[in-house]
Amino acid sequence: MTLETQMEQVVEQILEDYRHGREIDQMDLFRHPDREVVVEILGKLRRILFPGYFRDKSFRFYNVKHNLSVLIEDVMFHLTRQVTLAYQGVGEAQAQAEQHAQQACLAFLRGIPEIRALVQTDLLATYDGDPAAAGMDEIIFSYPGLYAIAVYRLAHALYTLGVPMIPRMMTEYAHNLTGIDIHPGAAIGRYFFIDHGTGIVVGETTVIGDNVKLYQGVTLGALSTRGGQRLRGQRRHPTIEDDVTIYAGASILGGETVIGKGAVIGSNVFITSSVAPGMTVTVKTQQLQYRPQLEKKSEE
Amino acid sequence: MTLETQMEQVVEQILEDYRHGREIDQMDLFRHPDREVVVEILGKLRRILFPGYFRDKSFRFYNVKHNLSVLIEDVMFHLTRQVTLAYQGVGEAQAQAEQHAQQACLAFLRGIPEIRALVQTDLLATYDGDPAAAGMDEIIFSYPGLYAIAVYRLAHALYTLGVPMIPRMMTEYAHNLTGIDIHPGAAIGRYFFIDHGTGIVVGETTVIGDNVKLYQGVTLGALSTRGGQRLRGQRRHPTIEDDVTIYAGASILGGETVIGKGAVIGSNVFITSSVAPGMTVTVKTQQLQYRPQLEKKSEE
Amino acid sequence: MTLETQMEQVVEQILEDYRHGREIDQMDLFRHPDREVVVEILGKLRRILFPGYFRDKSFRFYNVKHNLSVLIEDVMFHLTRQVTLAYQGVGEAQAQAEQHAQQACLAFLRGIPEIRALVQTDLLATYDGDPAAAGMDEIIFSYPGLYAIAVYRLAHALYTLGVPMIPRMMTEYAHNLTGIDIHPGAAIGRYFFIDHGTGIVVGETTVIGDNVKLYQGVTLGALSTRGGQRLRGQRRHPTIEDDVTIYAGASILGGETVIGKGAVIGSNVFITSSVAPGMTVTVKTQQLQYRPQLEKKSEE
Repeated sequence: MTLETQMEQVVEQILEDYRHGREIDQMDLFRHPDREVVVEILGKLRRILFPGYFRDKSFRFYNVKHNLSVLIEDVMFHLTRQVTLAYQGVGEAQAQAEQHAQQACLAFLRGIPEIRALVQTDLLATYDGDPAAAGMDEIIFSYPGLYAIAVYRLAHALYTLGVPMIPRMMTEYAHNLTGIDIHPGAAIGRYFFIDHGTGIVVGETTVIGDNVKLYQGVTLGALSTRGGQRLRGQRRHPTIEDDVTIYAGASILGGETVIGKGAVIGSNVFITSSVAPGMTVTVKTQQLQYRPQLEKKSEE
Repeated sequence: MTLETQMEQVVEQILEDYRHGREIDQMDLFRHPDREVVVEILGKLRRILFPGYFRDKSFRFYNVKHNLSVLIEDVMFHLTRQVTLAYQGVGEAQAQAEQHAQQACLAFLRGIPEIRALVQTDLLATYDGDPAAAGMDEIIFSYPGLYAIAVYRLAHALYTLGVPMIPRMMTEYAHNLTGIDIHPGAAIGRYFFIDHGTGIVVGETTVIGDNVKLYQGVTLGALSTRGGQRLRGQRRHPTIEDDVTIYAGASILGGETVIGKGAVIGSNVFITSSVAPGMTVTVKTQQLQYRPQLEKKSEE
Repeated sequence: MTLETQMEQVVEQILEDYRHGREIDQMDLFRHPDREVVVEILGKLRRILFPGYFRDKSFRFYNVKHNLSVLIEDVMFHLTRQVTLAYQGVGEAQAQAEQHAQQACLAFLRGIPEIRALVQTDLLATYDGDPAAAGMDEIIFSYPGLYAIAVYRLAHALYTLGVPMIPRMMTEYAHNLTGIDIHPGAAIGRYFFIDHGTGIVVGETTVIGDNVKLYQGVTLGALSTRGGQRLRGQRRHPTIEDDVTIYAGASILGGETVIGKGAVIGSNVFITSSVAPGMTVTVKTQQLQYRPQLEKKSEE
């Protein structure tokens, strides 16, 4: 059998396989937002958030207005198209989806100053919190924590406006880049600071107050997710009040768990019940065992 | 000394440095697969796995066959070239490497429907397992867990066919994107679900049954890897039987460790011995210490 | 109100918002290094470090010199421009910044053979340490640990030369890709091995000896960072002496903590005080609770 014949067989087999009618076989992509376009929009939104981040070397103050207009128009055009697709994806007819999308995108863009006011507080909190930060620029250009928070704030605004799918695409993109997984449904106050960040999970129904600090590997999660889709929409994740610090690797689980104002949760603490305001919680004694190595490096 | 002279010196020094004959100095790249080409192939394989993911706007059902043919031919051509390079990299002569590569790539493409059947089960398991999942589309387009699993399933098929180097390139690319590090050598059953995923490590000789759920930060690892290359090929990682759930941050180590059917391993459990079927294992008492802060925020 | 009018309002609102004079409003980007250019430079430096990694198919030994010259010139040109911007960013006048930058970049390129000698030891340590490694090529092409270490070694050289901002941009890029967060200020000896790596944090003032192995999720951190900017410049992170192995998830904190030569720190150990040379430290007894599930999968 020639290679050509064999390749034709392969194609036929896969085509045959597409006809099973399973979820994986669905092909109606015209109702799907395009992840790569969404990522490009995120890049443009970042430039709107941080005007100092503009790479365009001709971008100077005297033509800020012109450049911003072009950028905003571009975001409005592409975001509206993607949001339309997202609404169609949940069953809306095209005309309705388009109208919904335009309203949502306008409302979203109107909210940009509010988002910028929040991100400014996050920037200050990051500078205050990290002795290794040499300056604000370094944070804006390099810090994964601030990046993940900024993307979350944009995605949360769209989520709050009821836009399907796209907010999660945005935060999962930031998750890819930073290892920080903040669900766009979480509600997070001002002056939010994330250090290092890899492995952080903030669940969909988490509520976080002002001036909260999270370190790498912290989980704000559900007590158990074995209920699966039946739990959809219920409060499953904790409440973190103002001025709380949560050190690396701590897990705080459950929809009824409240960490009170000003509490400090130590590294690796695993908590499923509430903590009173102002308390410090640490692992009491991690009993360690010290033994000399009789023969180094030859035993295993 | 002019800058030109100094630059010439730098070049001469580095050229001199390349002549040390160390591993880092090797220059025979003609026997190396090209990571960027492998990543492009992965993108195309993803479109074959999920036909709804096609970005090509002209891709409609009536020309699915034509598009798929083009895509399959393209993957066959480039993958065969890369696999040839990989076989040459382990010492095969070009003619033999080419023949091997063609056989392996054909067998791999013939196995696509089987891989798709598995990924369909993973998709269902993800939807069932995550209350935050709004729909199948969102999972296919955004979820790092499903992405890492799909890449693993493709890489594992190549690994099973004996293809060197390329399977690991594929899973390390997914590791880069998702923080989920599944070795292509692991054997994993149907309905595999990973939530959040950052920090997960699944070692080379791990065996996982059907319907297993893993949360972020889980390690299925070796008891000790200090034996290094001497341990190569031995069973070093655990067996996880059907219906097991392993919560965030748990570590299960060792080639003789078996987690029995239906067991539940709690967060942060560290286990190096077997667990009987149907058991729930949790950390008994993490002794916590609560103390009020006398003066908040001024002490440190 | 027409859409045009509404869009104009949005633009005016955001322009108005830029006039607040906050840190987030700064627009003087001409003094900022360009992250994307820095990432391109990193790619070129990687090819200089690993000459076998050259993708250029015309790159053969007989024209190595020519290709290397072109590459070095290119790096020198672009790196000098970016470093100039970085010096301007900390207040230097352009002429001084340019001179500083040229000196620093020349010194950096002169140090490449030294960096390559270190990375060669890291490559050997990785091969020796990982039973799953099929060969040196696989490590160079696929392993996130070696990649993160190589980027750190380049960034550390620039950091040591006093270059602002750019070293951190480099290591944060590697952090994005690998989940491994090594501050360019850390001092790390030869034969450094990182396995899996996701979630590793190595703080700014950490000192690491030769032949040290780190597994995923290890933190070498500060005891508390609540002092924020007041702690800037102080020694806040631990000292790890030669031949130490630190298993997954262990945290070693504090500027006065010294892990003595040859010590082994077990998984999930949390340590804030020194360990004598040659000791093995493990968590003594993680008390586990085993209970059978009365009715599997229906309880929650």
